[in-house]
Amino acid sequence: MNATINRRVVLAARPEGAPAPTDLRLEQTPVTGPGPGEVLCRTIYLSLDPYMRGRMMDAPSYAPSVGIGETMVGGTVGQVIESRSEAFFEGDLVLGAGGWQDYWVSAPDALRRLDPSAAPLSTALGVMGMPGMTAYVGLKEIGKPQRGETLVVAAASGAVGSVVGQIGRILGCRVVGVAGGPEKCSYVTGELGFDACIDHRSADFRSRLKAACPDGIDVYFENVGGPVFDAVMGLLNDFARIPVCGLIAHYNATSLPEGPDRIPRLMRQILVKRLTVRGFIVFDFRQHEAEFLETMAGWLRSGSVRYREDIVEGLEAAPGAFTGLLEGQNFGKLLVRVSADPTLTA
Amino acid sequence: MNATINRRVVLAARPEGAPAPTDLRLEQTPVTGPGPGEVLCRTIYLSLDPYMRGRMMDAPSYAPSVGIGETMVGGTVGQVIESRSEAFFEGDLVLGAGGWQDYWVSAPDALRRLDPSAAPLSTALGVMGMPGMTAYVGLKEIGKPQRGETLVVAAASGAVGSVVGQIGRILGCRVVGVAGGPEKCSYVTGELGFDACIDHRSADFRSRLKAACPDGIDVYFENVGGPVFDAVMGLLNDFARIPVCGLIAHYNATSLPEGPDRIPRLMRQILVKRLTVRGFIVFDFRQHEAEFLETMAGWLRSGSVRYREDIVEGLEAAPGAFTGLLEGQNFGKLLVRVSADPTLTA
Repeated sequence: MNATINRRVVLAARPEGAPAPTDLRLEQTPVTGPGPGEVLCRTIYLSLDPYMRGRMMDAPSYAPSVGIGETMVGGTVGQVIESRSEAFFEGDLVLGAGGWQDYWVSAPDALRRLDPSAAPLSTALGVMGMPGMTAYVGLKEIGKPQRGETLVVAAASGAVGSVVGQIGRILGCRVVGVAGGPEKCSYVTGELGFDACIDHRSADFRSRLKAACPDGIDVYFENVGGPVFDAVMGLLNDFARIPVCGLIAHYNATSLPEGPDRIPRLMRQILVKRLTVRGFIVFDFRQHEAEFLETMAGWLRSGSVRYREDIVEGLEAAPGAFTGLLEGQNFGKLLVRVSADPTLTA
Repeated sequence: MNATINRRVVLAARPEGAPAPTDLRLEQTPVTGPGPGEVLCRTIYLSLDPYMRGRMMDAPSYAPSVGIGETMVGGTVGQVIESRSEAFFEGDLVLGAGGWQDYWVSAPDALRRLDPSAAPLSTALGVMGMPGMTAYVGLKEIGKPQRGETLVVAAASGAVGSVVGQIGRILGCRVVGVAGGPEKCSYVTGELGFDACIDHRSADFRSRLKAACPDGIDVYFENVGGPVFDAVMGLLNDFARIPVCGLIAHYNATSLPEGPDRIPRLMRQILVKRLTVRGFIVFDFRQHEAEFLETMAGWLRSGSVRYREDIVEGLEAAPGAFTGLLEGQNFGKLLVRVSADPTLTA
């Protein structure tokens, strides 16, 4: 290998509110070779996902925070450029957790070999990866949609929401998306086949959502929170299920909203409608991974599930793209192309 | 039969806040005989339960409201005094839904014959009835306690909470109760065998609850809401389950509490701890009734489950006793003895 310089994005300061340009810092370090048994990879794609906002905080969560001065974490697709493990060879294409940098050294058991003939490399970070599986397990294991029920999905054009809705459609639900802006809504109904998609920025959002759910809502896949959640609550049917996957509308908040405290109202709804509200993260469902990969690969081949990627070029673009993600500026699964994808240039 | 006058308690006005004496009215009407196929019963015991506060409201809920001028609803144990049904005979002891009155006419399929040799009649409204089964199905089907886990139960000396905790103990949990006042707490630990019971009126309630749950909380059986819920939230373990059975602390509220709006904090807890919050009512689990009755009868015979009744005398005492129930003044399952229990006076 001839790589000598590694660029990486480190957490410079914990954000207050929306991440500021000074909260992340691009720096250069020498590339360190792999130790015995390790593998050195060049990053091709870096995934940008809302959960990363949580890792920038030091509040307790399901995963450790990124320390100040440490490289931002993230899922990556890369190529092995030097291996001191018998499990991988130079040139292998892999999925790993390289973070926001040009090169990463990995233990072999933190890598999974990818077959670019099965699906485009980038999908390992999207529809065939963590976001796709989040949609799959959250909807099937917690949402438990039944044929004929109404499923509402926020962030419907996003990496997770787009898959949730398409699976709901495959399972025979009426699927109503919520997205930001007419372009995304058109894509969600036109390309993804949702029955309806409501623009949450529209002035009559609540009444339009209600009109789109004439039989109420049986499953609300929660990845947003905020006003969308509020609008949904009034439309839920008895025994509705709410898988809680994310709360992107809250991630940049620096304080709680003004009162009154609506927890008693929420709890009353949970009681009288016998709602199930259940948080989850995809790693709680590792045992479903093989089933997910096989099922999703079939849906992709048959065209039952489609996806859209929003790819920004260059590691230096990652901080700005991430800030935009938290504001809903991306359109589809957000990825950073850190280096050329050899399966596309070949 | 020689009954001619029926006293009944009707809803005179919808309460604002705590029910006022003028919200309920005792009135007299002629006893109407049973129609063809019907059964006339004399009320022996009337059950008073927190859910009745909800029936006094006209807000949408899982059951219809009591109309103004209508008899307050309620579970009753009674004796058949005239039957025009082949299913019941004069003298039969029955469980039904007679409401707050001396006599009620029932369809036979709304009655269940009771065997006073199996268990005291009054238990059909308590440990062997709706409250007991609420505890049983809510804990087992939603709380899903595992041996060695910590279970916290509010209103621990009450009709439901006392049974929840004792079942938790039978299932091998560490059981921590919350109750109002030292007398109830002593009963909960001394008589019911909970591992600890914390007085929610004590100034250091939060720190004492934390000390009583050194390994955190895995199941919180929610029948209270308010400050107890707030204290519990910070102690919940990952994957904790919260069956939501009641919210008595909120029932008399006329407005939401002051802000900030803590829903985002609650939802974040649900997400990062992967909590399950699920509302239920006992009628959703009718299919478990036979299993419940058999299991609970065994526990009562063996002494594994104990119970305490708080019996007030006379229908005219019902309104005041009900107001006290909402303030936690009862100690054990609250019942009204509307007429003499023939199995006790015999």
